[in-house]
Amino acid sequence: MIQQFSYEQLLTFTTNIFLQMGSSTSNATIAAKALLAADLRGVDSHGIARLSGYIRLWKGNRVNANPNINIIHQTPSTAVVDGDKGLGLVVAPAAMQIAIDKALQVGTGWVSVKNSNHFGIAGYHAMMALDHDMIGIAMTNASATVAPTFSKERLLGTNPIAVAIPAGSQQPIVCDFATTTAANGKLEVIQRKNGVAPHGWVQNNEGLPSTDAHELKKGGAMLPLGGDFEHGSHKGYMLGSIVDIFSGVLSGANFGPWVPPFPAYLPMPHNMPGEGIGHFFGAMRIDAFRPAADFKADIDQWIQRFKTATPVNEQQTVVIPGEPERAMEKERLANGIMLMQAVVDDLKQLGEDFGVRL
Amino acid sequence: MIQQFSYEQLLTFTTNIFLQMGSSTSNATIAAKALLAADLRGVDSHGIARLSGYIRLWKGNRVNANPNINIIHQTPSTAVVDGDKGLGLVVAPAAMQIAIDKALQVGTGWVSVKNSNHFGIAGYHAMMALDHDMIGIAMTNASATVAPTFSKERLLGTNPIAVAIPAGSQQPIVCDFATTTAANGKLEVIQRKNGVAPHGWVQNNEGLPSTDAHELKKGGAMLPLGGDFEHGSHKGYMLGSIVDIFSGVLSGANFGPWVPPFPAYLPMPHNMPGEGIGHFFGAMRIDAFRPAADFKADIDQWIQRFKTATPVNEQQTVVIPGEPERAMEKERLANGIMLMQAVVDDLKQLGEDFGVRL
Repeated sequence: MIQQFSYEQLLTFTTNIFLQMGSSTSNATIAAKALLAADLRGVDSHGIARLSGYIRLWKGNRVNANPNINIIHQTPSTAVVDGDKGLGLVVAPAAMQIAIDKALQVGTGWVSVKNSNHFGIAGYHAMMALDHDMIGIAMTNASATVAPTFSKERLLGTNPIAVAIPAGSQQPIVCDFATTTAANGKLEVIQRKNGVAPHGWVQNNEGLPSTDAHELKKGGAMLPLGGDFEHGSHKGYMLGSIVDIFSGVLSGANFGPWVPPFPAYLPMPHNMPGEGIGHFFGAMRIDAFRPAADFKADIDQWIQRFKTATPVNEQQTVVIPGEPERAMEKERLANGIMLMQAVVDDLKQLGEDFGVRL
Repeated sequence: MIQQFSYEQLLTFTTNIFLQMGSSTSNATIAAKALLAADLRGVDSHGIARLSGYIRLWKGNRVNANPNINIIHQTPSTAVVDGDKGLGLVVAPAAMQIAIDKALQVGTGWVSVKNSNHFGIAGYHAMMALDHDMIGIAMTNASATVAPTFSKERLLGTNPIAVAIPAGSQQPIVCDFATTTAANGKLEVIQRKNGVAPHGWVQNNEGLPSTDAHELKKGGAMLPLGGDFEHGSHKGYMLGSIVDIFSGVLSGANFGPWVPPFPAYLPMPHNMPGEGIGHFFGAMRIDAFRPAADFKADIDQWIQRFKTATPVNEQQTVVIPGEPERAMEKERLANGIMLMQAVVDDLKQLGEDFGVRL
């Protein structure tokens, strides 16, 4: 029930689908690479499995295949970008590049984006900064699946934060995490298995603790990092709120419960206060603070110290953020990417519709 | 066993103690206000209860009463500040002011600080931005009390993050939280009571789950937000790491297990890679992104929507970050601040040593 494909095979297929959607060659390639970065890095929920979802958004006139991505306001260190309803997969790299360009000029660059769509995995965009000896930051809001502490209602998305930090002889540190107890993808894995989620991941439609991984379909909600108040869920709620405000309110996008949903069959929220989904990007030039070589030497020492910390269990050493994803990427580039049969069937149908061979 | 003092009484006392330490009038006032902001806002663990601890650091030659706080490197949007071993309570407001000044010029300002000491509560410094229609950000590293996921060793501090966001007719949103499951102060409260901490707050010296609030004294550790891997502690570990690197490594301060301890009787770590404790501050001018009035109107709508969310329990509505602290501040300014007898005794002794009357 699982099929294996090479990265190149999936990249070509995805690029061709976006071309058929009407994207330019350049944008189709940019979008395909951003989308497949998720599959390479092991975040299967955010990769090619979502391709037909993006296409349905386009068919529903919620995605513009040829966006005019535009700076609508700026200062030397900031910009607001209008994504013109483009794929977030295309808008995000463009906005991150603006942040990088500003950092080259004045030390740092900060870009808030409105009128965009889902951008894949946050870490991919943050990592663009690494080649420039910069720290990269990426975040996005998303449609409401998360209940703030004490709330029965869903008001926030899983609102991820990514921070990429250059190292010297060590590999870069790449943090990329949803501000919920568990990412949606992990919940989906459990939905497909026995359906029993750990405590603290979801609540039911009455706001009570639940271990039913299917609660979201029944009016329940995901929980902010921490799970419940006693375990600091108000901190996860604050983190999700910060991401929502930096991405949605600072740009003039939608925020809170008004962020448009990813599934095209879901209706748009009523009385939306802004335009599309919002993102936020940052780039900080290391040498705007310290000589890059000094910083990197210290980061190497940091990594070395954490990596060699005495583990609780000899079988499981301390993980440096980004390490598992990098190992997965290496493995999948070499040996291919496994896709579940349901995903393969979905892609084959999509390919038939567009005359593109998988 | 509890005594009540007016804010003014404690402010005068604290200012006089810092004056006796040798601080300038201006610095003594700045430090006293920053320290007492913790008592006003209900973070009793970080306020006047620590005053004698700061003095012991000065006596131990770890705090310089008359620091020459200096920008050692800068770009239009960034600076690295050398705190010259000053009180963090003095260094932090100076550094935050530099961030604000840079934001006035180029839209945002970002300041990493080395060679500093504990700065009180992060939220106080972040809130400096609010008067300027800016978003304020403050973070700091701290001596290692937290074990990263899978580690038996303590390698990170409680490393708090604060973000202050201006509103219009509503009150500002002020997030201020340690990146651990529970702040040290909450653990201290439990230590004084029955000693039983909730699951997920601490681990013992073998790295195993524990509910003994006294584990830190026995070689145990606090846990990153999330508590354990299944509940996302790797995300809390990443957050704490980001704070450590922005504060410690970007500035050339100490980081990870090398951050100097607050109690003056504890030895300094060996082979320290940097100078003192590190902080990180940010200021983003709202109108570097959108007209401030538009942003504030949206924030008002955000707050209104979250505040009126259907609660799980009618007795406990959804909390807007910063609300409880603001209510506490109002109450304590009006009715005074309660101090435990042990704290009063400690302050009286301190007052006697310096010839200052409480």
